[in-house]
Amino acid sequence: MLFFENDYGEGAHEKILERFRETNYEKLPGYETDRYCEQAKEKIKAACECPEAEVYFLAGGTQTNAVVIRSLLRPYEGVLAARTGHINCHEAGAIEYTGHKVLELPEHQGKIRAEELEAYLKTFYGDESHEHMVFPGMVYLSHPTEYGTLYTREELEQIYGVCRENHLTLYVDGARLGYGLMSRETDVTLPFLAGCCDVFYIGGTKVGALCGEAVVFTKNNSPAHFMTLVKQQGAMPAKGRLLGVQFDTLFTDGLYWELGRRAIEMAELLKEVFHRKGYAFYLESPTNQQFLLLEDEEAERLSREVCFSFWEKPDETHTVVRFVTSWATQEEDIRQLEKLLRSYV
Amino acid sequence: MLFFENDYGEGAHEKILERFRETNYEKLPGYETDRYCEQAKEKIKAACECPEAEVYFLAGGTQTNAVVIRSLLRPYEGVLAARTGHINCHEAGAIEYTGHKVLELPEHQGKIRAEELEAYLKTFYGDESHEHMVFPGMVYLSHPTEYGTLYTREELEQIYGVCRENHLTLYVDGARLGYGLMSRETDVTLPFLAGCCDVFYIGGTKVGALCGEAVVFTKNNSPAHFMTLVKQQGAMPAKGRLLGVQFDTLFTDGLYWELGRRAIEMAELLKEVFHRKGYAFYLESPTNQQFLLLEDEEAERLSREVCFSFWEKPDETHTVVRFVTSWATQEEDIRQLEKLLRSYV
Amino acid sequence: MLFFENDYGEGAHEKILERFRETNYEKLPGYETDRYCEQAKEKIKAACECPEAEVYFLAGGTQTNAVVIRSLLRPYEGVLAARTGHINCHEAGAIEYTGHKVLELPEHQGKIRAEELEAYLKTFYGDESHEHMVFPGMVYLSHPTEYGTLYTREELEQIYGVCRENHLTLYVDGARLGYGLMSRETDVTLPFLAGCCDVFYIGGTKVGALCGEAVVFTKNNSPAHFMTLVKQQGAMPAKGRLLGVQFDTLFTDGLYWELGRRAIEMAELLKEVFHRKGYAFYLESPTNQQFLLLEDEEAERLSREVCFSFWEKPDETHTVVRFVTSWATQEEDIRQLEKLLRSYV
Amino acid sequence: MLFFENDYGEGAHEKILERFRETNYEKLPGYETDRYCEQAKEKIKAACECPEAEVYFLAGGTQTNAVVIRSLLRPYEGVLAARTGHINCHEAGAIEYTGHKVLELPEHQGKIRAEELEAYLKTFYGDESHEHMVFPGMVYLSHPTEYGTLYTREELEQIYGVCRENHLTLYVDGARLGYGLMSRETDVTLPFLAGCCDVFYIGGTKVGALCGEAVVFTKNNSPAHFMTLVKQQGAMPAKGRLLGVQFDTLFTDGLYWELGRRAIEMAELLKEVFHRKGYAFYLESPTNQQFLLLEDEEAERLSREVCFSFWEKPDETHTVVRFVTSWATQEEDIRQLEKLLRSYV
Repeated sequence: MLFFENDYGEGAHEKILERFRETNYEKLPGYETDRYCEQAKEKIKAACECPEAEVYFLAGGTQTNAVVIRSLLRPYEGVLAARTGHINCHEAGAIEYTGHKVLELPEHQGKIRAEELEAYLKTFYGDESHEHMVFPGMVYLSHPTEYGTLYTREELEQIYGVCRENHLTLYVDGARLGYGLMSRETDVTLPFLAGCCDVFYIGGTKVGALCGEAVVFTKNNSPAHFMTLVKQQGAMPAKGRLLGVQFDTLFTDGLYWELGRRAIEMAELLKEVFHRKGYAFYLESPTNQQFLLLEDEEAERLSREVCFSFWEKPDETHTVVRFVTSWATQEEDIRQLEKLLRSYV
Repeated sequence: MLFFENDYGEGAHEKILERFRETNYEKLPGYETDRYCEQAKEKIKAACECPEAEVYFLAGGTQTNAVVIRSLLRPYEGVLAARTGHINCHEAGAIEYTGHKVLELPEHQGKIRAEELEAYLKTFYGDESHEHMVFPGMVYLSHPTEYGTLYTREELEQIYGVCRENHLTLYVDGARLGYGLMSRETDVTLPFLAGCCDVFYIGGTKVGALCGEAVVFTKNNSPAHFMTLVKQQGAMPAKGRLLGVQFDTLFTDGLYWELGRRAIEMAELLKEVFHRKGYAFYLESPTNQQFLLLEDEEAERLSREVCFSFWEKPDETHTVVRFVTSWATQEEDIRQLEKLLRSYV
Repeated sequence: MLFFENDYGEGAHEKILERFRETNYEKLPGYETDRYCEQAKEKIKAACECPEAEVYFLAGGTQTNAVVIRSLLRPYEGVLAARTGHINCHEAGAIEYTGHKVLELPEHQGKIRAEELEAYLKTFYGDESHEHMVFPGMVYLSHPTEYGTLYTREELEQIYGVCRENHLTLYVDGARLGYGLMSRETDVTLPFLAGCCDVFYIGGTKVGALCGEAVVFTKNNSPAHFMTLVKQQGAMPAKGRLLGVQFDTLFTDGLYWELGRRAIEMAELLKEVFHRKGYAFYLESPTNQQFLLLEDEEAERLSREVCFSFWEKPDETHTVVRFVTSWATQEEDIRQLEKLLRSYV
Repeated sequence: MLFFENDYGEGAHEKILERFRETNYEKLPGYETDRYCEQAKEKIKAACECPEAEVYFLAGGTQTNAVVIRSLLRPYEGVLAARTGHINCHEAGAIEYTGHKVLELPEHQGKIRAEELEAYLKTFYGDESHEHMVFPGMVYLSHPTEYGTLYTREELEQIYGVCRENHLTLYVDGARLGYGLMSRETDVTLPFLAGCCDVFYIGGTKVGALCGEAVVFTKNNSPAHFMTLVKQQGAMPAKGRLLGVQFDTLFTDGLYWELGRRAIEMAELLKEVFHRKGYAFYLESPTNQQFLLLEDEEAERLSREVCFSFWEKPDETHTVVRFVTSWATQEEDIRQLEKLLRSYV
């Protein structure tokens, strides 16, 4: 079977595995106090061009979202997110489990808009009874979004402007950040992002690691005793080296960017192939997720030889499906896929 | 100032105050084990024509919602509610504070629809990744709704049908139940309601009591150690008599119904007066809340002599306002209001 | 049956009931913004001689403890309390339900000691792994304690000194405060207490009210949006007058002190009677709770005509029982009790 | 520096690293549905001789405790544990964060006793007001304990007997289970343990894995939608292979037992060496943790060349320290340690 189902189907980049082996018998202290964690943090701060940043490692995305959001919100606050935001849909209520409401904003191909955020805030503070409501305390956005789309610098600046005026924390979920920053259609860089939000995370799990996300507090603004909170939410690994070694490797000699670039190249090739064959796109993204609109029979036929994701049924006879590339996708896979496609032209 | 701002502006019906005095020096056990609580429970079960019902008293609406919903949901479940449902908007995140998500359904003048509930469930269970999502475990509806509207028997039956087929608990917030059941335009009775949901509450605070709501589990389905959960959420009154005496009085000689009827009569008179003067209704409800669409100047002018609620600004020059009657509204108040109104006819 | 079981067996002082009646038809705003709440707050601030105090009303003790403790603790902190503290034993886990641990201190007839608190803190901060432990963030003590005992000025000053040095909040649970301050054996006054802690509450439920506790933040230190947190925990009464009228009455013309004094007089008389008859005290307290050590048969015999509380079984043939007086205890009750007692002299 | 500080100082056994490499490019589904998780589960069930067992993998110990305990307790219940139990001391309040109280039992070198458990239950249910208290719902014990001690078959049977009679779940924290089962002084086997509790976990992090614990529900008693709860608490790894590959390797050809045995051999050698030199033991355990009582100067002197843990100060001139062996400890390390020791004989 060809595999385009998601970007976490393989293990880790082999340099990471190699590094595990090399460092395996070093006696290291636990709880992210080892030298690999330290090195990785310094490399990430350098890559962010943000010396005042504070970096922490957690194991996975839902965990990271739950820990970061809960540790920064005050108890009377909720977090604003697109209706389609991962925290609002696909995390089994992990944010509400921490006691906080996810406040919905409208979405546009997965993105929120500064003016709609502003309108929300105006309505909220204009309501005489807002002391009986959940205060907006943070804005969550994912970059790339759940639909593979990207914010522009200008859009991020506008959103962050509204946040600062209203004392809201801006948090960016970068589960697929490597794929966003390596897109051919973005003007956003890592230093820009670090400057244009309060906290974000650099996804490892989907970009070459076995597990791990690097949380970056950009303004020397990490909560007091943050690692105690991480422990309390069950998210502190005893062997911090598991995360330290991985991120140290990813941020050595630009490996993280190389992996991002490879997935983007494969995504561009994938788009080309589907276009050449005349397939209809439901949403053609600038990153590693592509959404196609297939006739039901064609979806059925392809699924016998290719793994991809079912997304939704827009009508009785069509299916939206998702094809994903990753750091591990091979050009050969796409060539083979091409042979399996029909021609609509 | 004339007062139409809400239905909790006065104290309690005087029979309740009288009863407090009469029973004041009786030595009674605490925590709702006294004879007044017992009597009140029996009277409510009789009024519901539901001998297997279990009745408990809590102090207020938000508390009741938080305790009931949390005690009945399993940890992986959330509660479905209209976007405008009280628990979703005006309870400061009390449900999320218990760790559960409020799942939004569309609303129609505050009401949800069986077919939209069904569609939600179909989409949810049709989603391959629904194990990563919040399971729907309960349907919450308010009757009357936050807009004063009412469900018909048929609508409730349809909704409850969908709930039973899908193993969802149906919970009815009856903060203003007395005003709903005494409406001239309803076919819903208390026994009908008790038969057509799993748990509901009979609002006291807004219908003649100083405080208090009576929770009715209709199917012998109260959670194990429910009063321990009530205590744990800080909702158990030491002097249960405070609630027992009030509900015992309200359910003696039909006082609760008389209070409901009086508010409805006043609401009908209020509607008549506004119609006679040619005022525009934004939403003319069959219960004790009426929504008018006023020109901004008129809203401003009236507000100098009458207390009412600002609701929303539908456009630049108009304001939606809410006028509410209660068990304590006097005909004389409405006559005086009439004199203050302009004539648009 | 004679009644010495607890101090919440009767309703409210009749002046309170009278005041409910007088104010019943005034149209008042909700949520503790009415004039009676305002007046009551001013009177309490004056009685505390603490103009910068902030006063709020909640309905009951467990609720008050859960709301105050949760709103003041940071998420990595727990609350220190005597092993026998009410929050540690008899609140169904209400504090843990808010996500915070109760950290146990040794108890001496219900009291904690400054030096043991200090030792706890020294051990905690001396532990290399304390970042993996629950940080002490607050000290909770009850005055009177669950055993009716009282702290002296000196003891409170020592405890508060340790708290301030270690940045711990000191919170005093005053469920029975009126009985403590009116004891014949105390040097603690209300202004002294207000000066010697960060937050405390003045119990109404057990001292003449139908319900209600007045929380006093003494250092202009109430948490941001405190009433939103109160609402979120389901503790905000719609009809704030229920609490405002009661506390306004209790703090008019010294009624609260008069009620406290009456219970203490009755407690002294009760002690006298038991002594005269030669009964053995398990713990003779300076407030309204007295603990007696009865032979099992005597406990059994008395319980047929008198309500009191079973406390514990210290050995096979004896029972510790609790006799409580309150604002409503009559001298006649004690005279009748005397007649029922045997003579051990 | 010689390293005897803990049992998580190295990476993973090299067979695990080798296996990561071999399987790295296989396209595997996420969320523990891959073939390695499946295989590992079957091998663990076989090793437990418990075909009805259900096995799940989580990343770390605190997380596992928080997820298992919360998913099995009802909301009015707490978990009983030794005062020194890991969940009560060193998990930053992770259990209380889930809303549940840890109820303390006395400890004897880290162990609880059936008769003290029984006494606790008798007192609890004998208390008239126990509906206002936290119900005991589960017993937690660690095997080996935090002091390296072990329960005997008889002790476990007695405790489990009390649990079954009282409808309490028995949960065994096996963070170091491999070292316990391979002790020379135990009669407990894996099948015995699986038969003598309701749920336990087999620790990987401390016994040869980079991370990972295998939870075993022994009575077909895993909670409904357990993986949704795991996700909600942020504990579900996207790449389930990370855990599946590790446990599959550990439970192939008895590797887990071999690693356990090696640490025990090293611990026995360590004890021998300390005895030979005449050092005083504070607690000599049958597993991989040894506690020594050193004069302060000797502790200071040794710490310049050996890593070990400071445990506590029993008096002014002595220090209790902990020496730990693991699967990775080499005989050579102990020989070198021996040379550094003084002679007290």
